[in-house]
Amino acid sequence: MKIGLDVMGGDFAPDAILEGAVDALGQLPSGDRVVLLGDGQKIREKLALMHADPDMFDIVPTTEVIEMSDHPAKAFSQKRDSSIAVGYNMLKSGLIDGFASAGNTGAMLVGASYTVNVIPGVFRPALAALIPNINGSSSVMLDVGINPDSKPDVLLQYGLLGTVYAKYVLGIDNPSVGLLNIGIEETKGSAAVKSAFEMLRESSEISFKGNIEGHHLFTDEMTDVIVCDGFVGNVVLKMAEKFYVVLKSKGISDDFFDRMNFEVVGGTPVLGINENVVVGHGISNRKAIMNMLLQTCDVVHADLAGKIKEALGA
Amino acid sequence: MKIGLDVMGGDFAPDAILEGAVDALGQLPSGDRVVLLGDGQKIREKLALMHADPDMFDIVPTTEVIEMSDHPAKAFSQKRDSSIAVGYNMLKSGLIDGFASAGNTGAMLVGASYTVNVIPGVFRPALAALIPNINGSSSVMLDVGINPDSKPDVLLQYGLLGTVYAKYVLGIDNPSVGLLNIGIEETKGSAAVKSAFEMLRESSEISFKGNIEGHHLFTDEMTDVIVCDGFVGNVVLKMAEKFYVVLKSKGISDDFFDRMNFEVVGGTPVLGINENVVVGHGISNRKAIMNMLLQTCDVVHADLAGKIKEALGA
Repeated sequence: MKIGLDVMGGDFAPDAILEGAVDALGQLPSGDRVVLLGDGQKIREKLALMHADPDMFDIVPTTEVIEMSDHPAKAFSQKRDSSIAVGYNMLKSGLIDGFASAGNTGAMLVGASYTVNVIPGVFRPALAALIPNINGSSSVMLDVGINPDSKPDVLLQYGLLGTVYAKYVLGIDNPSVGLLNIGIEETKGSAAVKSAFEMLRESSEISFKGNIEGHHLFTDEMTDVIVCDGFVGNVVLKMAEKFYVVLKSKGISDDFFDRMNFEVVGGTPVLGINENVVVGHGISNRKAIMNMLLQTCDVVHADLAGKIKEALGA
Repeated sequence: MKIGLDVMGGDFAPDAILEGAVDALGQLPSGDRVVLLGDGQKIREKLALMHADPDMFDIVPTTEVIEMSDHPAKAFSQKRDSSIAVGYNMLKSGLIDGFASAGNTGAMLVGASYTVNVIPGVFRPALAALIPNINGSSSVMLDVGINPDSKPDVLLQYGLLGTVYAKYVLGIDNPSVGLLNIGIEETKGSAAVKSAFEMLRESSEISFKGNIEGHHLFTDEMTDVIVCDGFVGNVVLKMAEKFYVVLKSKGISDDFFDRMNFEVVGGTPVLGINENVVVGHGISNRKAIMNMLLQTCDVVHADLAGKIKEALGA
């Protein structure tokens, strides 16, 4: 498999991106190649500085950069030779099998819908984060940031997208699905969540376990998949990540809380588009990039996008 | 001041309630009395068992109990001699100056609107929780559970209600107000939150500092007041409380995280009604009840409800 990596995206690009890519090399499945997209000269210079053999990578030089502050749609349309635009074109043409970037998330999402497109039948693509469970497993939470206002049918579909992710990437048989809510009773919650509860319960395609509350997150009471709108999901994810940072700043180290470190997960796949794409934190460092790459490999080898298409009959 | 305490409400009633009340006695401002509402015989028996002088309290015997599982409106209307119904009647008549309960929250809210009423001009009463800041201060977050769908004008008003709370109960001069969101840019968030941003910015009555994100919560970047709908606020609060529990279960103790223990705060005031009312967790233990009582005293002495009426010109 060939995994495209945006070398120019993220607050610590290109150095941290290339360091993470080199670190990932030895852990990739044999036969997999990382395709570096970015400033060719900078890439070669940095690899030389690291005494890394450039032949271990495919290098695709690009001349433009979509900055973190750029307007996503405008930048994607205008900067045709940016690493993000070139990456999506290669993904569409089948020259790479997956694409990962810690750059401008908005531009990554725009790029997805402008090139590889949303899977027919998908209402809204979603970002799915892995969150740790105290028993050692991980759960898939979605959406964590694209759709702050998620309508009931969209929430229902998150249940299906998350089920496919948990099944094929995490290897969980018949994943349980929970709806994040403010009480366990089905009468609780916002109008959208109450309707979604009914729809999730009626669905024959997922194993719905009912509502889960804030204090169930990260515990044994957590389901394999957690459905929520992109507003509350984003707040929960950022809050958990910050808890880890605060604990670390206090010198407290713990196996469970250490798994809230975003660097360990690396990135979040974009579910509901025709190809396998993973976006990372803008603040991604060397370790986070390495893990984002490895995670992209997992997603590509599981053919997550293909499995979602199958599940949707698309 | 006289503080009414529902002795029959909560999972560990009446024992934990009475134990908490006895513990609070020595810490109340001089002249304050706790009015115990509940089963007179059980109250006297428990106080005797604790070697506590019953004359230290006012005791108002009631014969009925609104259970945690009761339908709030039905139970409040039908159980006229319940501790909650009698408490609200006393509050309305001025026989007590504040009322606290760890019982059926729904019935406490129904009771408020059936007896003491919502302050004219208040769109929706809100539950305001105190959340700890790593620098040692606390912030007021609202709503944390009553209104999962909060419209923009309701969110704007939370800013004002929270400002009055922070000013008069926490003693913060010109409290800063933040809007919980998924990005710092004003274009981020749900439709309701985007509109609320505009309204908060235009308001001359509050000191609006813009959006705050999940990773700003609990840190130095947190504002004195955090405005959010009751859905995300509830999830955040329960998640923080659970973090404390998980840390404790792992033997990790830390000044900052220990303040996420709900027992330390005790309860959440209901803002926007004509009298001072505090509701506690159903799982409140002795310590939580003690702190709920002390917090109710703070709220009563600050005359939070009166100050809110003034701020609204009601």
